[in-house]
Amino acid sequence: SLFKKEINVFPTVKQPLCWLFSVIVGHEATGVVGSIGEGVTTMKTDDKVIPHFLPQCRECNACHYPSGNLCIRTDITGHGVLADGTTRFACKGKLVYHFLSTSTFTEYTVVGEISIAKIDDAAPPEKVCLIGCGFSTGYGATIKIGKVTPGSICVVFGLGGVGLSVIMGCKSAGASRIIGVDLNKHKFQKAMADFTKPISEMLSERTGDPMGYSFEVIGHPETMVRASIRGATWYTSYLDCTKVGAPPSAKMLTYNPMLLFTRCMWKGCIFEACVLIYRQEKLRSCSKTDDFLEKKFDLDQLITHDLPLKKINEGFELLNSGQRLNVLTF
Amino acid sequence: SLFKKEINVFPTVKQPLCWLFSVIVGHEATGVVGSIGEGVTTMKTDDKVIPHFLPQCRECNACHYPSGNLCIRTDITGHGVLADGTTRFACKGKLVYHFLSTSTFTEYTVVGEISIAKIDDAAPPEKVCLIGCGFSTGYGATIKIGKVTPGSICVVFGLGGVGLSVIMGCKSAGASRIIGVDLNKHKFQKAMADFTKPISEMLSERTGDPMGYSFEVIGHPETMVRASIRGATWYTSYLDCTKVGAPPSAKMLTYNPMLLFTRCMWKGCIFEACVLIYRQEKLRSCSKTDDFLEKKFDLDQLITHDLPLKKINEGFELLNSGQRLNVLTF
Repeated sequence: SLFKKEINVFPTVKQPLCWLFSVIVGHEATGVVGSIGEGVTTMKTDDKVIPHFLPQCRECNACHYPSGNLCIRTDITGHGVLADGTTRFACKGKLVYHFLSTSTFTEYTVVGEISIAKIDDAAPPEKVCLIGCGFSTGYGATIKIGKVTPGSICVVFGLGGVGLSVIMGCKSAGASRIIGVDLNKHKFQKAMADFTKPISEMLSERTGDPMGYSFEVIGHPETMVRASIRGATWYTSYLDCTKVGAPPSAKMLTYNPMLLFTRCMWKGCIFEACVLIYRQEKLRSCSKTDDFLEKKFDLDQLITHDLPLKKINEGFELLNSGQRLNVLTF
Repeated sequence: SLFKKEINVFPTVKQPLCWLFSVIVGHEATGVVGSIGEGVTTMKTDDKVIPHFLPQCRECNACHYPSGNLCIRTDITGHGVLADGTTRFACKGKLVYHFLSTSTFTEYTVVGEISIAKIDDAAPPEKVCLIGCGFSTGYGATIKIGKVTPGSICVVFGLGGVGLSVIMGCKSAGASRIIGVDLNKHKFQKAMADFTKPISEMLSERTGDPMGYSFEVIGHPETMVRASIRGATWYTSYLDCTKVGAPPSAKMLTYNPMLLFTRCMWKGCIFEACVLIYRQEKLRSCSKTDDFLEKKFDLDQLITHDLPLKKINEGFELLNSGQRLNVLTF
């Protein structure tokens, strides 16, 4: 499926996540194991799998740390090669790089054993692919990082696929009220009427100094700051803020450190549910797909378009246009 | 006792915590109730008390929130008056303002009932006064905000009275290794040898990519950022960073938001143990003084000088000079 991270890769954005070109992007998918390499023990041919851009080697400090998920073998800074230092793609005699050790916008890809999770045979691939990043990132942010408590008020900035997954997480955690914030005028005519007011003041008016959780799922430094300011009387209300949106790294985040001193929390995260997925099952089978099959959460709500792979550029246009669009599945 | 916050009040620092002058500063003390006003029910004459600059009205959202401590009736932004809007001090016919609703650098002060906690009669006032801010802030930061886990590595930036209290908290939480970082050359000859290296690299070398907790107890934006950068391979090691130091609010904090995206946590806090003190005991008696009496923690280690109130200016000079100085008690 298409995800904003792919857009951030393109050179129009300075300092992208991955800076080696040519590259095969794509990191949120499902696949079938076609063949296995030497030493692979946990997968076999014809296994259904989800690639994971944050591997779990289960040997490094991060994998041993109870809440860790940034395995030392992740390629998040973009070397563009697999763990052995090689790339397995070439085009017209030239090397082509890997993207986040997954590169899923292709019919065949090569990934490390530690970068895939087995899923249930009954799981529909065109839906559970969302577990490979967007859904897991949003849902995991609420459970693992935000640690939303029952009865709390949650505010979600940005209502794309990840933002909506955050909302599913807040709901599942028992939030009493979930407020979505977005600029998409098709969605929020009523909210637009208050557009002249700072969002923190509006939240304060509507909730009476919110005590709860906010989630920034846009990746915009300005919104990150706003998502942490807690009402008109900013120093007396709590918004425990989790940043989920991938920021453009060329932009710096600037704010008054007094916000920290008065108990603001800035928590960041990435793909937090992957640990839930990988570690709870001994054989790396994907427990979240079971949850999906048991209808614990509804991925259908995150899917607005269904396009074949050859229309991928049309998909990017739709994603950039932002017309009522959440996540595209191919 | 003297605390850096008092220095931050002075007009040499831009945008101080409290900006109304003339003001009687001082907020960390012990006292004896001399007389009580109308409607006061939880205190009586001759009670030994600790003033608290963050009151606990027990009625507002913050007081009801389980982890809240910034009561709506705090005067942290510096109106300089008590809850009824008046100041009770005057000098030569002119109004003198209150500081953080406590103003303890005076023989007699007037405080709200919600701004004091009763302490044990046996508690030595010249020691347990530290519970009124410095000790509680540092100790509470480790238990309530950092939530240090047994066996973890902790790094503490700034080894004044609050920093040493953080260390006490880390020890009490069962940290396996506590690393102190300070520029005071009298204390750390060995560390100074490595002064040319960024602290994050040095920590990484000595601990093998730290997974644990850091505490910034200086209030310096640059150190705040450094305290969050986790080793040479910053994106693969965890330092769950709690900011305890009071920042100069005129300075902005600037950093690359990618730090957040890769799971950095910026937690801020102020005087966190006050909730432990106030809420665990129904009658606002101060449980921490009992801990002190039972020798659960040793406040003696935080005291380097003992001066009478009339030598207060000498005390400020000592505090500014930083000569092996932690906390001064009067």
